[in-house]
Amino acid sequence: MSNEVDTSSGMQRSRLRTPDEYRASLRDGRRVYYRGAAVDDVTTHSVFAHAVDHAALDYEMAHSGVYSGLAIGPDGNSRYFHVPQTGEDLLARSALIEASTRAGKTLVLLIKEIGSDALFALLALSAQLGEPYDSRIRLFYEHCRDGDLAVCVAQTDVKGDRALTPSQQSNPDAYLKIVERRTDGIVVRGAKVHTSVSINANEMIVLPTRAMSEPDADYAVAFAIPIDTPGLTLVASPYLSTHGKLEAEYPLSATRKMVETTTLFDDVFVPHERVFMDGRFELAGALARGFVEFHRFTAISYKLPLVDALVGAGLLAARVNGLERAGHVRDKLAWLISYAETLRALAHHAAEHCKLVDGVAIPDTLLVNIAKLQFAQGLHTAFQHVQDIAGGLLATYPAPEDLDHPVYGAALERYLESAEGVLGRDRLRVLNMISDLTTGEYGGYQAVLAIHAEGSIEAEKLTILAQYDRGRAADYASWLAGLDDARWPPG
Amino acid sequence: MSNEVDTSSGMQRSRLRTPDEYRASLRDGRRVYYRGAAVDDVTTHSVFAHAVDHAALDYEMAHSGVYSGLAIGPDGNSRYFHVPQTGEDLLARSALIEASTRAGKTLVLLIKEIGSDALFALLALSAQLGEPYDSRIRLFYEHCRDGDLAVCVAQTDVKGDRALTPSQQSNPDAYLKIVERRTDGIVVRGAKVHTSVSINANEMIVLPTRAMSEPDADYAVAFAIPIDTPGLTLVASPYLSTHGKLEAEYPLSATRKMVETTTLFDDVFVPHERVFMDGRFELAGALARGFVEFHRFTAISYKLPLVDALVGAGLLAARVNGLERAGHVRDKLAWLISYAETLRALAHHAAEHCKLVDGVAIPDTLLVNIAKLQFAQGLHTAFQHVQDIAGGLLATYPAPEDLDHPVYGAALERYLESAEGVLGRDRLRVLNMISDLTTGEYGGYQAVLAIHAEGSIEAEKLTILAQYDRGRAADYASWLAGLDDARWPPG
Amino acid sequence: MSNEVDTSSGMQRSRLRTPDEYRASLRDGRRVYYRGAAVDDVTTHSVFAHAVDHAALDYEMAHSGVYSGLAIGPDGNSRYFHVPQTGEDLLARSALIEASTRAGKTLVLLIKEIGSDALFALLALSAQLGEPYDSRIRLFYEHCRDGDLAVCVAQTDVKGDRALTPSQQSNPDAYLKIVERRTDGIVVRGAKVHTSVSINANEMIVLPTRAMSEPDADYAVAFAIPIDTPGLTLVASPYLSTHGKLEAEYPLSATRKMVETTTLFDDVFVPHERVFMDGRFELAGALARGFVEFHRFTAISYKLPLVDALVGAGLLAARVNGLERAGHVRDKLAWLISYAETLRALAHHAAEHCKLVDGVAIPDTLLVNIAKLQFAQGLHTAFQHVQDIAGGLLATYPAPEDLDHPVYGAALERYLESAEGVLGRDRLRVLNMISDLTTGEYGGYQAVLAIHAEGSIEAEKLTILAQYDRGRAADYASWLAGLDDARWPPG
Amino acid sequence: MSNEVDTSSGMQRSRLRTPDEYRASLRDGRRVYYRGAAVDDVTTHSVFAHAVDHAALDYEMAHSGVYSGLAIGPDGNSRYFHVPQTGEDLLARSALIEASTRAGKTLVLLIKEIGSDALFALLALSAQLGEPYDSRIRLFYEHCRDGDLAVCVAQTDVKGDRALTPSQQSNPDAYLKIVERRTDGIVVRGAKVHTSVSINANEMIVLPTRAMSEPDADYAVAFAIPIDTPGLTLVASPYLSTHGKLEAEYPLSATRKMVETTTLFDDVFVPHERVFMDGRFELAGALARGFVEFHRFTAISYKLPLVDALVGAGLLAARVNGLERAGHVRDKLAWLISYAETLRALAHHAAEHCKLVDGVAIPDTLLVNIAKLQFAQGLHTAFQHVQDIAGGLLATYPAPEDLDHPVYGAALERYLESAEGVLGRDRLRVLNMISDLTTGEYGGYQAVLAIHAEGSIEAEKLTILAQYDRGRAADYASWLAGLDDARWPPG
Repeated sequence: MSNEVDTSSGMQRSRLRTPDEYRASLRDGRRVYYRGAAVDDVTTHSVFAHAVDHAALDYEMAHSGVYSGLAIGPDGNSRYFHVPQTGEDLLARSALIEASTRAGKTLVLLIKEIGSDALFALLALSAQLGEPYDSRIRLFYEHCRDGDLAVCVAQTDVKGDRALTPSQQSNPDAYLKIVERRTDGIVVRGAKVHTSVSINANEMIVLPTRAMSEPDADYAVAFAIPIDTPGLTLVASPYLSTHGKLEAEYPLSATRKMVETTTLFDDVFVPHERVFMDGRFELAGALARGFVEFHRFTAISYKLPLVDALVGAGLLAARVNGLERAGHVRDKLAWLISYAETLRALAHHAAEHCKLVDGVAIPDTLLVNIAKLQFAQGLHTAFQHVQDIAGGLLATYPAPEDLDHPVYGAALERYLESAEGVLGRDRLRVLNMISDLTTGEYGGYQAVLAIHAEGSIEAEKLTILAQYDRGRAADYASWLAGLDDARWPPG
Repeated sequence: MSNEVDTSSGMQRSRLRTPDEYRASLRDGRRVYYRGAAVDDVTTHSVFAHAVDHAALDYEMAHSGVYSGLAIGPDGNSRYFHVPQTGEDLLARSALIEASTRAGKTLVLLIKEIGSDALFALLALSAQLGEPYDSRIRLFYEHCRDGDLAVCVAQTDVKGDRALTPSQQSNPDAYLKIVERRTDGIVVRGAKVHTSVSINANEMIVLPTRAMSEPDADYAVAFAIPIDTPGLTLVASPYLSTHGKLEAEYPLSATRKMVETTTLFDDVFVPHERVFMDGRFELAGALARGFVEFHRFTAISYKLPLVDALVGAGLLAARVNGLERAGHVRDKLAWLISYAETLRALAHHAAEHCKLVDGVAIPDTLLVNIAKLQFAQGLHTAFQHVQDIAGGLLATYPAPEDLDHPVYGAALERYLESAEGVLGRDRLRVLNMISDLTTGEYGGYQAVLAIHAEGSIEAEKLTILAQYDRGRAADYASWLAGLDDARWPPG
Repeated sequence: MSNEVDTSSGMQRSRLRTPDEYRASLRDGRRVYYRGAAVDDVTTHSVFAHAVDHAALDYEMAHSGVYSGLAIGPDGNSRYFHVPQTGEDLLARSALIEASTRAGKTLVLLIKEIGSDALFALLALSAQLGEPYDSRIRLFYEHCRDGDLAVCVAQTDVKGDRALTPSQQSNPDAYLKIVERRTDGIVVRGAKVHTSVSINANEMIVLPTRAMSEPDADYAVAFAIPIDTPGLTLVASPYLSTHGKLEAEYPLSATRKMVETTTLFDDVFVPHERVFMDGRFELAGALARGFVEFHRFTAISYKLPLVDALVGAGLLAARVNGLERAGHVRDKLAWLISYAETLRALAHHAAEHCKLVDGVAIPDTLLVNIAKLQFAQGLHTAFQHVQDIAGGLLATYPAPEDLDHPVYGAALERYLESAEGVLGRDRLRVLNMISDLTTGEYGGYQAVLAIHAEGSIEAEKLTILAQYDRGRAADYASWLAGLDDARWPPG
Repeated sequence: MSNEVDTSSGMQRSRLRTPDEYRASLRDGRRVYYRGAAVDDVTTHSVFAHAVDHAALDYEMAHSGVYSGLAIGPDGNSRYFHVPQTGEDLLARSALIEASTRAGKTLVLLIKEIGSDALFALLALSAQLGEPYDSRIRLFYEHCRDGDLAVCVAQTDVKGDRALTPSQQSNPDAYLKIVERRTDGIVVRGAKVHTSVSINANEMIVLPTRAMSEPDADYAVAFAIPIDTPGLTLVASPYLSTHGKLEAEYPLSATRKMVETTTLFDDVFVPHERVFMDGRFELAGALARGFVEFHRFTAISYKLPLVDALVGAGLLAARVNGLERAGHVRDKLAWLISYAETLRALAHHAAEHCKLVDGVAIPDTLLVNIAKLQFAQGLHTAFQHVQDIAGGLLATYPAPEDLDHPVYGAALERYLESAEGVLGRDRLRVLNMISDLTTGEYGGYQAVLAIHAEGSIEAEKLTILAQYDRGRAADYASWLAGLDDARWPPG
């Protein structure tokens, strides 16, 4: 990528949108369904309003004295759109993602993280895609950056029979594909699943989900469309509703919300200037992987508040239960700390030891994947340890309303008092937080995301095997085995 | 225990209550609160009715041709109350608990399991307790058995500072205790947590939670009271409500429900004939452990449908996702099968190799605890493997209502079709079941129960260390080390 | 199998050979090589004499008052040759294997275990093989039983390219095969690896190592030959020599020894009466698996002394180091106990719940494989825990000779004294035993055997997947998912 | 520490000793015993000569064109003695330790690593120790540096009853102590265990092993003495002898050797100028920990060739066995790579994010301990995976001599040929290397070192708990729980 994209001019902070401007931008003709019912205005819907408010934290942070230094990039735009050119850029991007997720109570905001990951992948491939795609990508990138837009990404196809390629499927719509090429654009049909933040984004980038070969050419398609594009239908998942949740009982999930949709493309027209790949099957895999690699670095950044929360949960639970000196509790706390800090160290080390490709700083791919893998494989154990320290009240706690009951509330609170003068009410708040974090739909959401989001555990292992430079180890082992007579070991 | 308790006479099956008789028995003056509001009738309350219906399966099974052979014991009473005298008795009890939990969709019924566990522990200790306690225990046992009653157990105290004994606590009510001794009975004050099925039981047995010493004598108390006893208040946990759940989306937890209460004893009077231990601090630990050991055998029996469901979930998910031949999926399935069948084999082996104590068959304590420990330590990994096979749709699935939508429902279902002709609707049902089983409050409930119910993981390790006969191994190691000169090894 | 094979007549115990008769039987024309040198007499060779003495324990036990009840079967022959017909038979066989391995200091004797496993597999397949094979197998079985012979088994081929079948290999000798069929017998060529106890056996049974198809017919061969058969060369592995080891320093491996050979068949002639399979490619897999399944039950029986030794090592090490009350040590001991006792329970449960096939009792295959898998996957962790408790002296201990040194020996011993009056000399013996058991070639031998002997970990997983009855779990999961409308769950 | 210690003057490379000068320096009056026999000259002793040659690699590297840039520090002295002042210094030190251990075939040289770790710890504490200790330490440091000396460290006491302090022991010599204070020095008595490289060092630094209190003042002693000091006796461990090993069979341990001694101090006189701590019980813990922390960074540096060798062993074994495409093999390789590269990344990140204390660069203590812990807890699993890929020949291989046998050698080699044209001889070399690396005494040595060297696993957990800054996690969890009302999260 050439460096024109970053010619920071005299751009002004004033161009960053306010939370209200963001909300207003979501009131358009988008077709969103929730439990079979059409949603008129996502910003006022009982569940989606929480998702919009959650995402709006991004705009709020940019205007907040606490975070603006982090949230605004060197060119005065949102830092998310700043193409990283150094390890410092990557560390700053990581720090912003961490800070916003931390403010989001362990739930990532994602409305710019994922979109910029896709934009960086497109920019990185634009030279290979050539004209006119190169120019289209740059224009669209500037459109998002200058408009301070919320951008989602639809990538995962439904896939049908996973042993077959797109063109081999019995169901021709198992993968999204081009069904018509017109003079002014293309028409696509199909569905994507797991599309995060689509209901409250401004733009949707669509990418292929896997490597392809020649017969799959019609499936090798990438483009971007506004959310209110005709033919685009967003069917929201009902999973993890905020509905009817008290914040005292569900301190995280009563208000924090991200929405995933099954996204239907019912012969959607995409004008040429928004088409970034059309038939270039041989580049489909590179684009799919390119996005995922940027996105995994985003992932290991946004997981940091979650692992910190788990360590903190363990520490607080040990305290309110009077278990800080118990041997097995200390053992579990040491495990949790090692788990969290290994992730942090690997994420930062990957950023600091990035590779420059055409001026773009790419975090160390091997380490990013190792970090993601270790996070993914350890989260269930982390939940187990925290639940073990916290105790059975996680699933048998009295309700917040009970504490206020005129007859038995005071007695209940007194009974729940613990060792070191921890108030019963405070103990319950800690347990409710841990219950929300690890046992309910929110905990399950994080668990499923750990395994499946940003590529599966198996995909990460594959990348690790592919990225590892085998020479150092294999040549050394050969020398040790006496298959190489050199006086000193190779490498 | 002498064998009078089982003088099976010509008792009739007709004495077993019907579900409706059971429901009617719950309409009394019990004081139950849900989210700060008094509950008039637990059988009609929006959430509790599910718990009552769930428990009523017990009575339904006894009258069902499919299960009555298992549900009715050799004396014509409910088999739960049959004091096991042989390995076969234990296997039959285990089979009944497994069958009823299987019918309960992996959720144990518990209204007789836990009560009979406590009754067996009391009967086993009755000779040591001596008269008049011995007779009181037998009479109460017959009362429960002959009345086919639902019986809960309140054991776990709130505990305050866990490093201190009951009498050392700064909060005098951290453990339940006798505050007054009258000519006709005792008065107790305090609270118990985690009291399962109390809101829909007929009787509550109260047991000490730990070993005690002389200054704790007033805390060394065991007794039984009807649920509508004055001064007894049941504060139900709001965790895992059935409220507003569609069965299509939550096939388990929309209707299956067990309720735990924080149980308050506000100067409750217990007449002498219901007092089973009063001040015998030196036996408090034996009673606490005796109950837990019977109860852990119940536990490893009622966990079997859960582990079967996880294996089945893995198998179905592999099928509907077209992943049956993937190496990593097969690896996880082998793990799940080994996990489940090890538990089953250990449970059955413990029953078959029981120890007879005063005519009561006690399952092998060491094996029961090993089984419980391995179950408890593996469940989170089992969830992880099942979620890994099932995929991200666990947390991003469209709603059941969406499939029926006139505009996009058919398309949605077609997209979700998978490899081997599995219908989109059926695939979704499988995913919803797995989501309910492993990711939401129901999965969290099972996870927390695994770690904390029937004694913690640490308590199980303690029992394993205490129960293990060290001679065989230690003497053998000494002989191997040459510290014993015998020609042949010891043992 | 018909039951003629067991027509126990008035056979006399006197037919069981003595250790010296066994030793004498090994002095024949066998061609054995050790480190490139021919071995004239295995019974007097500096290393092999230990292997012979070790194996001779079998004959010694049969004549010992302590063990003869176990070692002699109901028909007066060695119990190893008794075809199991009941669970009790299997338990007795398992107990004998456990007792002899316990006497063998955790090293299995194997000279009848493995041979009888192969004989049982041949007998079980003899009806399918038909005449004349059926009669040949029975005669050979009676020959081994009546002669109280030591019998080894050569199964594992070298395999070349594992992705190819025998007939597809570029190297035609990668699998043992028939190179000539004569009127009086066959001629075979090839090599087998990992042939245990061949140098000190009387007979060798040769079996195919895998399933085959028609082009592999010449490789589908099974037969038996005496060890001194012309053309048979045994190249012994030098691994784990007893050479120069003090028993005080290596209490196990200074004298306990089993030898494996790479076994070369240089156009070996096998007379017809010793050929049990010739070209029946469609039965090759059944025979290979049949042997392995019997052999895995042998394996989980002979692993019991090893896991007991590890528990005992942990207990002794905790004692001599004064660490019995340390939390992490107790945690590791609980793990070791659970590991050992789960294996024992599964082995016994598999025997007690055997399946009768043509009158032969087959231990539960699923459980045997689960037991073997869990043993194999846990052994390295068991070593780790024992080493952790034992301490660094495992690899830095002073020599036994140092304790006796006139100048510093006494001081050294005094320094090594530990907390509870454990003598320095005894502490060192415990550490030497643990070092031998877990850190040196003996520990490595057990580790490699755990993973690879009696089939690999992957083979065990395959068998678990194949043997598991999927119905109970899969149908239940379908019912839970609402795909089956029955009132009660299936199964 | 002031920076005088590094006043690099015009020091010349010529001052670095040659291997022969090093060997000559070991021929003095040192009292070394091996298996109860006095050793006259360690440089010619059949086993110790290998240890001397191994250590001499250090001097060889300094004079080798390949390594001198790394081996010689900025002041012209050996880089080991260069007090690190920046992250770059730490990285260079780490790289040198890695390179020399790599040249040492995964066995650390240690003759300067451990000594400089102790010197740095003494220098770091010298201001607190004050005069005259401060000057003595600096002089001794310069003596070692300028003389290019080999320096060992004796720290671990025998400890007796681990629950008691030194002065509480029934055995007064369970810890080394001062038994007399003279005008010209002190006299010490006691023993130290696990003293590495003492038999081939020039100087020995003695440090306390734990924190102490006032009654332990006579045990709070640190000093340095030449190895030939009267009263000092080195009793070498016979573990892992090179005796009689063929290099073809034991490519690592036939020649690579490090010796540990039990080190006896029989009223050893130490002159004042060599006494660095005398009675300062309150600083004993700081000195013990200070050394261990420097030494753990050394450890995670010298473990890198070992983990590389394990990855390489896995890669080569997969290749020679034709298993590179097997799913379970790829899974294990991904595990091994992640294990190795996490260790490398943590080591480097800890160096780059060091803390400056009085001008000395201290690697991040939390990360160093996490790295060491993860290495220690994973090594047995790494061995298991490599053994799994390598196969049973690890313990049943034919001898190198067999391949050369005129009769069957050629056949043997042909049989052992594998899939991809790998020669039988080369395949065997790979298997012998892996056998040496993971199954014999060398593998056991590495396993025991992993757990116990540089502090135990439990000590590392303790340090992790102590070093972790709890604020970020605990305050965040409090905020999540609603115990802190701030708009934005803390930290």
